[in-house]
Order: sequence, then structure tokens, then C-alpha cells
Amino acid sequence: MSTNNENSIETSQPNETTGKSDKHKTKMQKLKSVVDASIAAADKEQGIIILMTGNGKGKSSSGFGSAARALGHGHKVGVVQFLKGEFTTGEFLFFSQQPNCEYHAIGDGFTWNTQDRDSDIATAKKAYAQTEKFLQDESVDLVVLDEITYMFKYDYLPIEPFLTALRQRPKMQTVIITGRGAKPELKEIADTVSVIDDVKHAFRAGIKARPGVDW
Amino acid sequence: MSTNNENSIETSQPNETTGKSDKHKTKMQKLKSVVDASIAAADKEQGIIILMTGNGKGKSSSGFGSAARALGHGHKVGVVQFLKGEFTTGEFLFFSQQPNCEYHAIGDGFTWNTQDRDSDIATAKKAYAQTEKFLQDESVDLVVLDEITYMFKYDYLPIEPFLTALRQRPKMQTVIITGRGAKPELKEIADTVSVIDDVKHAFRAGIKARPGVDW
Repeated sequence: MSTNNENSIETSQPNETTGKSDKHKTKMQKLKSVVDASIAAADKEQGIIILMTGNGKGKSSSGFGSAARALGHGHKVGVVQFLKGEFTTGEFLFFSQQPNCEYHAIGDGFTWNTQDRDSDIATAKKAYAQTEKFLQDESVDLVVLDEITYMFKYDYLPIEPFLTALRQRPKMQTVIITGRGAKPELKEIADTVSVIDDVKHAFRAGIKARPGVDW
Repeated sequence: MSTNNENSIETSQPNETTGKSDKHKTKMQKLKSVVDASIAAADKEQGIIILMTGNGKGKSSSGFGSAARALGHGHKVGVVQFLKGEFTTGEFLFFSQQPNCEYHAIGDGFTWNTQDRDSDIATAKKAYAQTEKFLQDESVDLVVLDEITYMFKYDYLPIEPFLTALRQRPKMQTVIITGRGAKPELKEIADTVSVIDDVKHAFRAGIKARPGVDW
């Protein structure tokens, strides 16, 4: 990757510049080998379905940490956030600015009014349409479906079409599903299931939720 | 925040530009009110200690999702990663490029050779020095100490100085500690403890770890 050119800056300048250039070269070589290995490995593997559920803190943040990880490897990420809206969370403010990340937060559309259920079902269906789009898009490496579990738990969406879409998705695509109250079918279809137990929670100790920490 | 200037582009151009400008203005106003609320709320609250432990997937990624969330709110984040090294993880590749995030991944320095324990203890101490620096820095809003639990579990570091540093940290600073085998003292001092249970794991089903998903 590097060439030994006698006129190059590495051989013609004294210590400090040489040291910095060598260090930078080494870093870039390392970066290249990581990316190459990433591409090579990816060709041999398959995407998985990860379910983050349970009552404890960490479900959504784990989905977003995984999104950051994927973006760091140059992957393309699609996010649909079912319960939260735009401009209300740090994750929206942060990820919606990232190249290679397409972010839809549709939570603002819900009324949660039992007398307005039709409107909420329509909102859920709109979000689901975007979900299916991602699940059919081979260019999307990672799909994060934050708090989609509630859509099935409260029967805003039927679960069978979703299971079918998951099964038929691009082979290399990974999907992360987060939220409490995951139906058994989701636990069944997932390759990895993490249940987060709420052993102790700051809220119960009287400490208020904080922006930047809790949303 | 916006002014009605008759010479401004909003009043002098036809529909499309006006629509786009209004939409942008609304977005910016929304953003401003979120940031203002964030600042106001932060003045009344306190930082917390969050421990993500257990055997299941999601501990580290939750720490990094929280980092993204904090960065989205314009907060400053300090990360010390104890087991992983530079240029080997998506999170390093991603977060080390973010303004407002200072990232130290020291895992490459470990030999894990029982006959080289002194060298490993020296590496651990170096990482701990950076940890203490963050914990004493009022400008750092969120400190993520990824997989620090092993330093105490394997006695590379004494735990008491760390507990003291946590207690004496800036009042508004939040700390996230991740890793398996967390000592009881860590569970005791944390405000929020999430234990992730490894109910099902893709590895056991024979699916290999993948870059962008698992690291």
C-alpha cells in the first residue's frame, strides 16, 4: 500500500514528520486491512435477527449502538422508530445527520386514544410500509426496528406478514427488534434474544429522567 | 427566532421555496426548543451510574447507543474501552471521528499472558488514569467505561479508588459501566443496573460472528 519513493516526505524530512507520517501510514494500513477483512468475512456469513426485550434499560440504546457499529464499518442502516417522534430524542438528532443512515421516527403520529384506534392503526401501517421497504432492500445492511414489539402486542399490526418479510429479507441483512412484551413468535424467529432484567432503576430511587441519558 | 422581512426569500419567492423555508424554520425552532428544554432540565437533575452486565448481547452496544444519544444532545462524551483495541471495532471507527467524543481503546495493550501480568497491570493502570481524568472533568457529560468490569474481576485494578472516583465525580456527569462479572460493589454503587440474560444466541446456532454486527 505504501511505496518507497526517495523523494517522498517520509525519507526527506527529519524525525517528527517522518514519525507522524509513519504512524499515519500504519493506521491507514490497519484500517484498510480491517475493511478488507470485513468485506471478506461478510461474504461468508449471513444476517441475523436480534431481539432486545425485557423490562430493563438498554434495549433501544443497544439497537442504536449496533447502528453506530455498522456505520463505522461503512454499512448502510435503516431505522424505524415506532414509539418516539422526530426531534425528541438524542438518537434522532444524532443519527438523522449521519450519511448512510435513513431514519424514520413515526411515534408523533400516535394518539394512544382508544377512541381513535383507526387513526393509530393507519399510522402503524405507514410505519410498517417503510419497514417492509427496508426489509426488501438489499443495499440496507442493518435494519433497526425500535419498539416495534408494541405494534403486535396491542394488535395495531398483524404479525404474520412481518414474520414473512423477515424470512424473505436479503440473506446478508441483519435486523434488530427492540421493545418490551415481545410476542413468542418474535422470540422464536430471532437468532439472538437478550432479555434485559430491570434489577435496579434510578427512577425508582427518585432520580428524574434526563435528556442525553434517557432520551 | 425568525423575522418577517419583506425582502427575505420566504416572502418573495413562490410556493416551493416558501414551503421549504417554512419547513426548515419549523424544524430549527423545534430543534431549538429541544435543546433549550434539555439545558433547563439538566440544571435540575443529576448524573447517574448505569451498570450493564449479564451474559447476554447488548451490554457494550447499549453503552454506545447512549453515547450517540448524548452526542445528539450536544453533550461531550469520554470513552475508555478496556478489552478492545483501536481500529478493530465499528464503534471505534465511528465514534473516534465524532466531534465532542474522546475515545481511548486500550485493549491492544493486553497480553493476557499469566506470565506477563505485570505488563498487563501497567496497561490497566494507564487506562485507569484516563478513566480518572474523565471522572474529574466537569466538561465531560457522559463517561462510557466499556468492559471495565474485568479489570476488577481479574484483580488488574483495585476497586476502592474507582468507587471513590465515582462518588467524587461532577454532580451532573453520568457514567456507564459495561461488562460481565460485575463485582457486588459495582451493583451497589450503580443507580441503574440492567442484567442482560443470554436467552438465545446466534453463535450457539452455528452462525458466525460478523463485523458490523458483533464488533
